[in-house]
Order: sequence, then C-alpha cells, then structure tokens
Amino acid sequence: MVEIARVEKADAIAHGATGKGNDQVRFELAAAALAPDLRIIAPWREQRFRKQFSGRAEMIAFAKANEIPVEASAEKPYSRDRNLLHVSYESGVLEDPWFDASSREMRDMYKLSVAPEDAPNEPEYLDLTFENGNCINVARPSRLRDADAQAGALTPLQVMQTLNKLGGKHGIGRVDIVENRFVGMKGRGVYETPGGAILHFAHRQMETLTMDREVMHLRDSLIPKYSELVYNGFWFSPEREALQALVTETQRDVTGVVRLKLYKGNIIVAGRKSPKSLYDPQIATMEGTDASTYDQSDATGFIRLNALRLKLRAIRDSGVG
Amino acid sequence: MVEIARVEKADAIAHGATGKGNDQVRFELAAAALAPDLRIIAPWREQRFRKQFSGRAEMIAFAKANEIPVEASAEKPYSRDRNLLHVSYESGVLEDPWFDASSREMRDMYKLSVAPEDAPNEPEYLDLTFENGNCINVARPSRLRDADAQAGALTPLQVMQTLNKLGGKHGIGRVDIVENRFVGMKGRGVYETPGGAILHFAHRQMETLTMDREVMHLRDSLIPKYSELVYNGFWFSPEREALQALVTETQRDVTGVVRLKLYKGNIIVAGRKSPKSLYDPQIATMEGTDASTYDQSDATGFIRLNALRLKLRAIRDSGVG
Amino acid sequence: MVEIARVEKADAIAHGATGKGNDQVRFELAAAALAPDLRIIAPWREQRFRKQFSGRAEMIAFAKANEIPVEASAEKPYSRDRNLLHVSYESGVLEDPWFDASSREMRDMYKLSVAPEDAPNEPEYLDLTFENGNCINVARPSRLRDADAQAGALTPLQVMQTLNKLGGKHGIGRVDIVENRFVGMKGRGVYETPGGAILHFAHRQMETLTMDREVMHLRDSLIPKYSELVYNGFWFSPEREALQALVTETQRDVTGVVRLKLYKGNIIVAGRKSPKSLYDPQIATMEGTDASTYDQSDATGFIRLNALRLKLRAIRDSGVG
Amino acid sequence: MVEIARVEKADAIAHGATGKGNDQVRFELAAAALAPDLRIIAPWREQRFRKQFSGRAEMIAFAKANEIPVEASAEKPYSRDRNLLHVSYESGVLEDPWFDASSREMRDMYKLSVAPEDAPNEPEYLDLTFENGNCINVARPSRLRDADAQAGALTPLQVMQTLNKLGGKHGIGRVDIVENRFVGMKGRGVYETPGGAILHFAHRQMETLTMDREVMHLRDSLIPKYSELVYNGFWFSPEREALQALVTETQRDVTGVVRLKLYKGNIIVAGRKSPKSLYDPQIATMEGTDASTYDQSDATGFIRLNALRLKLRAIRDSGVG
Repeated sequence: MVEIARVEKADAIAHGATGKGNDQVRFELAAAALAPDLRIIAPWREQRFRKQFSGRAEMIAFAKANEIPVEASAEKPYSRDRNLLHVSYESGVLEDPWFDASSREMRDMYKLSVAPEDAPNEPEYLDLTFENGNCINVARPSRLRDADAQAGALTPLQVMQTLNKLGGKHGIGRVDIVENRFVGMKGRGVYETPGGAILHFAHRQMETLTMDREVMHLRDSLIPKYSELVYNGFWFSPEREALQALVTETQRDVTGVVRLKLYKGNIIVAGRKSPKSLYDPQIATMEGTDASTYDQSDATGFIRLNALRLKLRAIRDSGVG
Repeated sequence: MVEIARVEKADAIAHGATGKGNDQVRFELAAAALAPDLRIIAPWREQRFRKQFSGRAEMIAFAKANEIPVEASAEKPYSRDRNLLHVSYESGVLEDPWFDASSREMRDMYKLSVAPEDAPNEPEYLDLTFENGNCINVARPSRLRDADAQAGALTPLQVMQTLNKLGGKHGIGRVDIVENRFVGMKGRGVYETPGGAILHFAHRQMETLTMDREVMHLRDSLIPKYSELVYNGFWFSPEREALQALVTETQRDVTGVVRLKLYKGNIIVAGRKSPKSLYDPQIATMEGTDASTYDQSDATGFIRLNALRLKLRAIRDSGVG
Repeated sequence: MVEIARVEKADAIAHGATGKGNDQVRFELAAAALAPDLRIIAPWREQRFRKQFSGRAEMIAFAKANEIPVEASAEKPYSRDRNLLHVSYESGVLEDPWFDASSREMRDMYKLSVAPEDAPNEPEYLDLTFENGNCINVARPSRLRDADAQAGALTPLQVMQTLNKLGGKHGIGRVDIVENRFVGMKGRGVYETPGGAILHFAHRQMETLTMDREVMHLRDSLIPKYSELVYNGFWFSPEREALQALVTETQRDVTGVVRLKLYKGNIIVAGRKSPKSLYDPQIATMEGTDASTYDQSDATGFIRLNALRLKLRAIRDSGVG
Repeated sequence: MVEIARVEKADAIAHGATGKGNDQVRFELAAAALAPDLRIIAPWREQRFRKQFSGRAEMIAFAKANEIPVEASAEKPYSRDRNLLHVSYESGVLEDPWFDASSREMRDMYKLSVAPEDAPNEPEYLDLTFENGNCINVARPSRLRDADAQAGALTPLQVMQTLNKLGGKHGIGRVDIVENRFVGMKGRGVYETPGGAILHFAHRQMETLTMDREVMHLRDSLIPKYSELVYNGFWFSPEREALQALVTETQRDVTGVVRLKLYKGNIIVAGRKSPKSLYDPQIATMEGTDASTYDQSDATGFIRLNALRLKLRAIRDSGVG
C-alpha cells in the first residue's frame, strides 16, 4: 500500500473501510508508521458520503446503477472479506449472536471449507516439517523420508495454500466468535481458516517437544498482548517489534516433524519427533532404569523447600507449629 | 486427605506417587498449606523401597504375589489415573512421542470417550446455562424454556457427569500432549476430558458475549500463570487466592445460554444469548441506522491519536515530516 | 462531579482541560462510566474557542480584561495544578527537558516542599501504622505505644495531610519526569508529592515483611498495568475493578509498624515489625540453631531439580553428558 | 568458575555457600547450564560438616585454630559479601528487622558509602552519556562537550568504579530490605550500591525521553520477572535469554545525556537530552502554536471511542440510555 503510494508519488492514501470496524485502524496505523507524511482519505467516515450512502445496501445499489462491478450483492445477507489466511463473514443475518451459522441452510456461505458433516469418511495423515518455528514442508507420511524433508521445502505461500486445501477438504478451521473491535464495540464474526488452524495446532505440538518449560510459560503469558497488537493494527509498532524479538528467540529450536490426522473437522496429533527434543524418555519413565541424571530422592528436598513458605504462612495464620 | 488425617489424629500422610511426577508435589504442597505439622511419607522416594521395587512391573508382581488387588496389570502397556475431570494415560508405549495414540489398535485404551470415527453420524444440540461464570444447567434445546433454566439447575457434579457422558458419546475431549512436569522433565500424556472440553469451550463463548474487552485481555494474560499454579500443585497458595479474586470478579456477568452442536469430536457453537450481553447489534451494524451512540467521525480522531506516537517515531527515525 | 450534575439535573458536564492533556480523558471517561447519558462540553477542543484563545497567555489576558479572578498569571512561566496527593508543574520554561528545575532560581516554584538543601540538619523519626494495607496512624516514635496505635487512628485525609507536612519539611517527594500522555505525546512534568512518597516507601517496607514472595511477584508484575489504567483515566472501568480485587486480596495481612527516618530528601527505613510477619529469624539465621523446619540438605534436591531442565538442555545442545 | 574447572580438568565444583541462602542456587544453576557434567560439592549442606560446624561462629573458631586467614570475625556481628555492584550485610544484629541499621552506632559497618548525614554540604553535578542503553561516559558538566562524550568513553568497569566512588561520597545507594530467598524463607539484608543506584536512576531518565510509551509499559511489566530470574540464579537460562532479546530491542534508541545532581543521599535529575528524543515540545505545548501534527479536535473522537465500551456497560447495568 505504502510502496505503491511512493511509486505513484501520491500525497494521500484512500480506503473503503467503514468507520466502525478494525480495517480502517489497521490501514491507517500502518500508514502512520511507514509514511507519516501521507494524508488519509476515508470516505465512509465523511458525513456527506454517509448521508448519500447510509449503509451497504445503498452502496450496492449505487454501484449497480453506475455499472461498477462489485462482488457484494444485496441478496447475500452478510459481508465477506478474504485473504490468504482466512475468509471472514459479518453483518446481516450474522448480527444476531443466537443465529446458528453452522446450520444446513448456511452451508453455501463458506468458501474455503466443507462442513465437518460433509467431509470424507476416511482420515488423512500429514507430516509437517518445522525449522526454527517455521513450517517448511507438508507431505503425506508415505512420501516423506527424513532426508527429503528439507530438500522439497515449500515457500510460506505454498504451505498456506496446501494446508488451506487439505484443511478445507476435511472441514477444519471454522470459527464463530463474538469479538472485541478496537473502536470499542463487540461484533460477531464467522471465519474460515483451515490452513491457519492446522498450522497453529501443529506448531504448538512441535513446541511442546522442543521448547523449554519456562520459555513456554513466559511466551504464553505474552500471547494475548501480541494478538491484541496485531488485531488492533499495531503490526508496525515498536512494542510489536520488541515482542517479536522475544518470540523469535523462543523459536530457535522449534525444529522437527509433527504428524497429524485430519478427520471431519478434527486435527489429531499422531506423532512428533525432533533432533532438538527436550523430552528424554529415560528420565521421564516410571519403569526402573539406571538413569543417573534423576535421583527420586531429590524430589523430597525440592518439594520441602517449595512448601516452606506455605508452611510458614500456615503456621503464622493458625498457630499450628 | 487432610480432613481424614485430622479425624484419625494422624501425625503423617502417606501417598504412593512416584518421585518423578506431579502428583507427589500436589499432595505434599496441599498438606504443607493445610496441615504444616503433618509428616509426609512417600515410599517411592525412599531408596530402600526403590531397591526392592525398581518400577511398576516389580510392584505389580509383588501385589500379585501377596494377593493385593490392584487394577494395573503388566499387560496394559501404560498407566492410568482417573478423576471427575479426566482420565490420564502415561508410560509404556506412550513414552515414545512419535507413537500414534489415536490409531485403531489403541482404541481399547480409552475409558470416557469413543474415537471421533466411532461417534454417531447425527449431531446433537445442547444448551448450557451459565450464571456468574458457572454452568448451572445442561439440556436439549427442545426441552429448555428460558423460565426453566434455573428451575432445573444441576449441581456442579451433575454438570460434569452429564457433559462427560454426552461429550464421550460424540468423541470429544481427547488430548495428546508432551507436558512439562514441575520436577523439571517433560513427559508425554494422553487425556480424555470430554466434559472439561465442552465446559471450557462453552464458557469462553459465554464470556465473549458478556465480558468487557479489557477485562478479557487482562484475564487472558494471567491464564498461563493460573494454569501453572494449579498444575504445579499450588492450589492452596496465597498467589492462587489472589488470582482467584481477580477471576471471580471477572465472572460476575458471565450469565446466559450457549447452544452447542456436538458432532464426531467437534464442539461447534450454534448460538449464545445473555441478559448481560455487551454486544449491541444496533451499534455494530454495517447497515445504515440511526444509532446515536456511535458517530463514525469519531473514528478519525481515535485513529489519529493512536497513530500519533507512531508518526512521531517515524519522523524521528526517517527525517520525513 | 457526576453527583453534582445529578443534583442540578444537568444534561451535560463542562470542563476547562485542554485537548492535549490527560485531564480531559480522565474527566470524560469517568463521566462515561458513571453517567453515560450526560453530554460533554470541552470548550478548548472547539475550534471557535481555540481561534479566540490560542493559548494560556490569551486566556489569562481575557480573564484579566473581564475581571475574572484566576490564579494563573502570565508572569509565572509554568502552569500549576494541585490536589491532595500532589502539586504538578508543566509548560513554559519546563518544556525544555534539559532545563534544571532543581536550580536555586526555581526554588520559588515549589509549594509543598523545601529543597533538600534547605531542609533541617536534624533527621526526624516517624512510625507509620498499617492495617490491611492502609496507613491508619503516623506518630513520633516516643509517643507511640503499641496499644495506642489503633486508638488514635487517623483518617486517610489526616494521614495525607500529616505526611505532606512532614515530608515537605524534609525536602521529600520532588519528582521531575518526561511522561507519556494517553493522547500520544510525551510531556515534561515536575511534581511535589511528599506524603505520597513517604506512604509509598513505607507501604512497600510493610509488605516486604508480611507479603508472600509469590504474591509479591505476581502483584508487582501488574503494577504497570494498574498505574497505566489510573493515569489514563480508567479508574471507573471493569478492568481496574478486576485488578483491584486482586490487590485488595494481597493486602489482607499488610499490618504492622514501619519506622522511618526523614532527612534532607531521604526516606530511610529504621525498622519494621508486624504480628503478621512471614519472616522467621530462627529459620533464616546463618548461625547454628535447632530449627526443625529447615533442613539444609533439602536444598540439594531443590537445586538439583531446578537445574534439571537446564542440564537436559545443555546436554542436548552440546552433546556433553 | 566453569572456565577454571575446564582448564584444571576438574570433575567437580565446590563452594562454601550455606544451605539457606541464594548463592548456592546461583552457583549451581550456572554450573548446571554451562557444565552439566560437573559434580557439585557443597560442604555446608552435608550433615557431617554441619555437625562439626553448626554455624558461622564455630567455623571462624576453626579457621583461627588452624591459622586459616578469613576476613570474618566473631566480633563483627554480621556477615559481609562484596562484588563490583554492591556490598551486602546480613545475619547477627541485622536479623531483627526492627533493628535500625542507619543509626550512628552502625556507621562503621558500611564500606562503599558515607551516611547521607556525613556527605558534603555542596551538591555535585554529573553528566552520564548513554548509547543504546549503556552508560559509556561519566563526566563533570564543565568538562564535557558533546563532541567529547564518545571520544573519552569509559569501559563498563570504569563506569561502575566512577559511579561507586561518586555515589559513595554523597551518601547514595544504601538499601535496607526484607527479601524473599528462592529457598522459601525471608531474610533481612542491607546493601550499599552507590554506582548501581545512580546508573539505575539515570538510565530510567534517559528512557523516559527516548523510549516509546507502549514499549515502556510492556518492558516494565516484565521487570519483576527478569529480576526474579536474576535473583534466583537463572542467568544462564533460556527464559532469561528470551527476555533479554526483548530488552535489548527496547534499548536501541536509549541514547543521549542525563545530567544529575548528587546531594546527601539524593539523586536529582537536572536535565536530559537526546538526538533520539521522542519528546516534541511543539506538540506538547499548552501555548498557542501552529503545529499541524496535532489537532485538538481529534481528542474528542479519541475519548469518545475509548469511552464507548464503558458507556455500553453502564447502560447495560443501569438501564440509563
């Protein structure tokens, strides 16, 4: 957006987002950070245009009358937006949060996925290969040998396209939520994100095997903040960059393969392995072994000192000693 | 546990947890907080017993030889623990994180749920009624009238039993993870928690409609800490109590009904409504309305001031102005 | 503010804060939460008034010409605001962050405190009594017997007045900062808060003796959020109320006496004691004692298990084992 | 420590810390992370040695009898530890938290600083130059020209030595606290850290001018975690490294000069300036200017949308509309 503005020697950026949603904020905060000198033109927020076009219906009529081709139609009782990561649906019948968007009548709405009920009866297995936190390959188990995992690496775009297709086929990634728009109101949105859902699930599985416990707790406590920043449009902000530095550091060893089973809306883990695994069955086992690293007697002192402050407090509060 | 110790005038508490797991920590930290004067006896952590019984196999053999009835058997190649909220499986074949616990061969292991593949072909609808964050009723849609929701309130025990049964029937709530034990090692665990999965999903849906945005962001940022405390055995700790005070405050208005559809492992939201809803379609709508509370022109100033610090920083860093 | 509006049956609230500061936000967010039906009138933000009065200088001239008594004067090269907790100074010569507000020439500016250089040569001792986190008494050590501490309890107002007077006498509580206004810009402010500084210091000392370690770490991690909410004007918000529930819970045992020494700008702790103390010298001592609660051998297991994940990671990364 | 062990081909590391303090944890966690194969020998935690030497007194007597030179003496009624950043005092008379460590009788204890009462009657000015968050120079104002600030850069060691000397001369950096040892007990410690106190104060001042608001709020919320990790001995842990990546990112523009005034225990800011300043007096000013970047009318929309969710909640809860 900003790049094009520079090429065109523009002195302003215009967008068609309404004054009630998140998109306006995202466009304009990005422009502020990358091109603070450019003016913003947002016709929907100018009263004269709102008088002329009080809503989507009037705008669609105007486009029709003036032969401007738009995909939206007054018949489709909802709005739709699409990018690589998802398709979103809002407005119209969806505005009632009690309205069932998963009903048989609504099945035509969805573009990326079938309903779980319409997905194949046979599960499909999938191996996702990760390197430093990024998915670099997606393949059927039988076709992936370890040596090939990196050889046939996919681009991030190909990863998303592949996962969107496979996830959509198996009815995965439909989300129906009441969300909290940055402008201060709640809104109801329905999303399809088959590839995103698979990637998110598999990535977390890869992390459980390779990420240190305390790193995970720390990172997890910052996920709501990171999500909030992205959702609210602060991608190009210094606080997002600071968080990113932490996140990137946590991904250094998130490397390996996760095997998934896709079946009628379910993402099921069927295995994970990694050269960077922090899981040592020799230590974790409940069976008798000779693992010299773990002496169960140590647990006594460990627990006793973790309990010490609880005991001191209990003694203070109860007089028991 | 502590109550019984008091009744029996015991001066110690004994438990059979191993020195490698979380249960020993949970038992003993609870005892420290509630009965700091009681001694703990943990035979598995005493070397003389570990010499005699180096693992589960030896212990099972001893029990058999001495006619002590135990449910575990050397044939079952894993261990199992059960409470109201879940059944957990560990050890044995499950110690290999690449081992597929969802395969057809493993279907006998599970006690609370069928596999998604074996669940009914017909979805089932369910209405969960919440009051101040607690689920107080579960009913089939046709049988629930608003007036009855509270009349036929279930106890928390009944809620869990009902949801465990319904969730298990539809293949819901199986979880396979590599987790981070408090004693410092990773372990692989497989869980069934059909009722917990449904409750967690429905409760979050109820919150999206009734909970303030900033309250949700704040509370969400503390979930990893709360979970960590519970998992690590610090339920009876002052920090858990402090967090609980915050959580309880956030639940005051989490009241209403969530309609779910259960189908072959999927929990799908089919509607939510609440007398405490913070969602106002009149304000969120993209259609032309006369809602006086929201003036789209306000968004201009809102975005401009949110962008101000980003602009000032961009100007500083680039010299553009 | 809102109470008066209701009594007067007003349909709007007006304030004289500028469009650049924090006060406008605080007034208006409070009104939104307490009286969402009232209109806000903020003349400084209306262009017609800004045209007439482009800044403080023009406004002062208008007031003088119309015989409206205002304390501000064109001669004082800064603005001043005062409440029970502080006096603040901004604008004018203070706008240069390199300007030394502590210089001899500026000593006339301050209203609540002398400069440390002008404070008495003799220190003064003070005992602050706390109950559940609140300071309920302030007295000279010689005049306070334990039994009297609660008998002569002061109101919160009296506590602040007493501490402001004593702190100001000893040159305590001057703060000079570049702060981050909610509207997106930085500003430079100089503050006097002698009573606030003493209260804050003493309260923290009382906590160190009586508050559990993990409670303190948790609470401390939320201080920036709480401060941000208060500073930005979200006192009457549900997220502040949720945090307050946690904070209030943490204060239950913050009870006891803190002895302070005030001397030329310094607040020095001279002792703290509490019936709710969690500090047990018998356990903490480095001298030989017979304290049965702490067995130093326990530390071995405690450290070994805390080290376990670090060791496993080091082994993974280096091949050393 | 570990380096020496490697050079000496040692198979163990020994230390003389007691089983009650933090030092043992710090030494051993560092060794676990850097040299997981080395054994730890901690004589104080072995019962046979504790029987022989039940405390500091017995150990001092043994050292004397065997002509082992140690600095500790039975006469000094406290223990002392020293490094570049601080001297700490514990034990003995200091174990009573009501004991006044600032009294005239205790003045001999302190090694790095005079008491504020004994500091010079004349304040001293100081300019600290920062680059990317690090202090690289300390100089008297008259002797520092901007061009020279980097020319005469000091090493980190020289910075600390200079600030320790200057701070100590002016009675700065004494701290008396009840702290929370990782092993589960509280302890009372008195510290001298004149250089650390000055560095901490000046660095924060430099940040207020150059660091983005949201970056500061985010970083501040993580300070308790970072401090906890360092205090508990987790310097060489992956979670500290992840946090460090965030902190390092936040320091990129913390560059400039802070002028301080040191006077009888007080650190007073006397100015700050920076080529990376985010503070723009033209925008922040309350006087009439023509700054086109800030339109006060924007504040209306900004506040109204920040107020929206508060209003909607108030309307829900009160029925006022």
